Amino acid sequence: MNGGRAEAGSGLVWAIDLGGTNTKLGIVAAGGEVIGEESFPTRPERSGGSWVEEVGAALRAIGGREGVDEGSVCAVGIGAPGPLSAKEGVLTNPVPNLPKWRGFAICAALSERLGKPAYLDNDANVAALSEQWLGVAKGSENVVVLTLGTGIGGGVIAEGRLLHGFSGNAGELGHISIDHDGPECACGSRGCIELYASAGATVERYRRKLEEAGREAEGEITAEGVFEAAEAGDELAKATFAEVGYCLGAAVGSIVHAFNPEMVVVAGGMAEAARYFLGMIRSVVKERTYSDLQVGLRIEVSPLGDRMGLLGAARLAFMAAGGE
Amino acid sequence: MNGGRAEAGSGLVWAIDLGGTNTKLGIVAAGGEVIGEESFPTRPERSGGSWVEEVGAALRAIGGREGVDEGSVCAVGIGAPGPLSAKEGVLTNPVPNLPKWRGFAICAALSERLGKPAYLDNDANVAALSEQWLGVAKGSENVVVLTLGTGIGGGVIAEGRLLHGFSGNAGELGHISIDHDGPECACGSRGCIELYASAGATVERYRRKLEEAGREAEGEITAEGVFEAAEAGDELAKATFAEVGYCLGAAVGSIVHAFNPEMVVVAGGMAEAARYFLGMIRSVVKERTYSDLQVGLRIEVSPLGDRMGLLGAARLAFMAAGGE
Repeated sequence: MNGGRAEAGSGLVWAIDLGGTNTKLGIVAAGGEVIGEESFPTRPERSGGSWVEEVGAALRAIGGREGVDEGSVCAVGIGAPGPLSAKEGVLTNPVPNLPKWRGFAICAALSERLGKPAYLDNDANVAALSEQWLGVAKGSENVVVLTLGTGIGGGVIAEGRLLHGFSGNAGELGHISIDHDGPECACGSRGCIELYASAGATVERYRRKLEEAGREAEGEITAEGVFEAAEAGDELAKATFAEVGYCLGAAVGSIVHAFNPEMVVVAGGMAEAARYFLGMIRSVVKERTYSDLQVGLRIEVSPLGDRMGLLGAARLAFMAAGGE
Repeated sequence: MNGGRAEAGSGLVWAIDLGGTNTKLGIVAAGGEVIGEESFPTRPERSGGSWVEEVGAALRAIGGREGVDEGSVCAVGIGAPGPLSAKEGVLTNPVPNLPKWRGFAICAALSERLGKPAYLDNDANVAALSEQWLGVAKGSENVVVLTLGTGIGGGVIAEGRLLHGFSGNAGELGHISIDHDGPECACGSRGCIELYASAGATVERYRRKLEEAGREAEGEITAEGVFEAAEAGDELAKATFAEVGYCLGAAVGSIVHAFNPEMVVVAGGMAEAARYFLGMIRSVVKERTYSDLQVGLRIEVSPLGDRMGLLGAARLAFMAAGGE
């Protein structure tokens, strides 16, 4: 039994990383130690209430397994797809990931089910918190995190504070446009970086290259498959990532001029393949920004892998609850 | 003599708006009242020290004229072209406006000459301070100011605080790119909004339209001339501003996704002509941003005219000196 460990710190939190496909959750100590964790399919076709029930059962099962005294848990932190209202704890518009949960008061529901205060922020914002807490941005006060996956999200820490903006939606960096006459985006704009460098855009680029080269794809192409092809030495896959890196570099150039960060962190599912595009981002940004903005600037890959969201949700809960 | 007025408030400041062409300066009271002001040509070909002498003489002349007791002046505020180091009070890289003053420790020099603490920030940042203090952004905590002139500058107030970033150069919004394959910019990037919507770009657009229409320009074209032509009903001038507005709208779309402001203020010399492009900015932004980011968003023209920089420099001094 490791109840002693659980009681030793300055409290514990329940942390939830709500994704369109999977929900990861766990119990996290104030130093960032994950006491126990698990995950289950989110099944967004069901009601939010049913999901909350499963969350509650899972958190208590982990607690039982690890001998955690529920009294030492001070809060619940949730990272979820935006747009959302962090202030009101509501998923205002979680399309396309969770269209049925539009308007779901997730904090109130979790708080009622679990008996602890619950705090919500969007997944890219909690990613920024986790990078600053335990990741590559540790100690940096001016951090931009780009989460590259199905979509592209952004989390910005400016002078030590997470940037929320007027309605809580600052840092929607997937919708920085790199071409005002580019393809149309779901947000209404054109040429958003999300259309050039998300997982789907990467797959589409690779598919076109295969076609042009007269090669046939083996089965369904995924971003992971493009990465594996690059790892196996496929030049078309490498060229695909180089193009992704070029486009990301152009967007990061605008982002650097906007926020003047010390650290830009590339995270999310696509970060796995970063060795094939990080160099390109760095060289484009070096070429495309004022030298004053390059002073001390670093562009790095997240070291936290798929625990980033869980740890960020934990950090959110600790900060909100004043737990440290 | 109005010395009584000068002593009535909670102190006065000396405010300096340093431009590449003219220097405006004055004595400002804590409520924003300008006690006295004047301006002189900056003459950037001379030394910084010679300019400081003229500043000192001019401020003392205003003080003498208005009967101001120098003991009630608590600080000096300066707005100047960036990039600069606000923290160190140094003009690090004021190219192309003041190339000879690169590295000039302007705060130390002014402070020594005037015997008061001096505070520096870039012209677009002090513009944001003045808009929030006395302008159209009064009471807003999330404000973006775009200064449209020879170049395009940006000042960002996020959750009540002026955003500086890691090296003090956040908000370089003239270098938000709207086309990653667009024309080359002095910053090293391509397609920066400054290349599409500054005063010079406006003149260039109008010149091309005249050429295409087989019309001859009468004398040298200036942005003010394009404005006057629009006022006189010239459809080519109006179409020029509509294009400027379209490009600005595309950039503001990215800016809104980045910062989620409540208020975007269009300021600077070009703002005079805003009636010919503000509607276009608004409609492009409405079309090109997520609805969550449009909640409460306003896009307005600065009401402060050419006193904006002076008032912003005053505000900077009052804030830094804790004068209010």
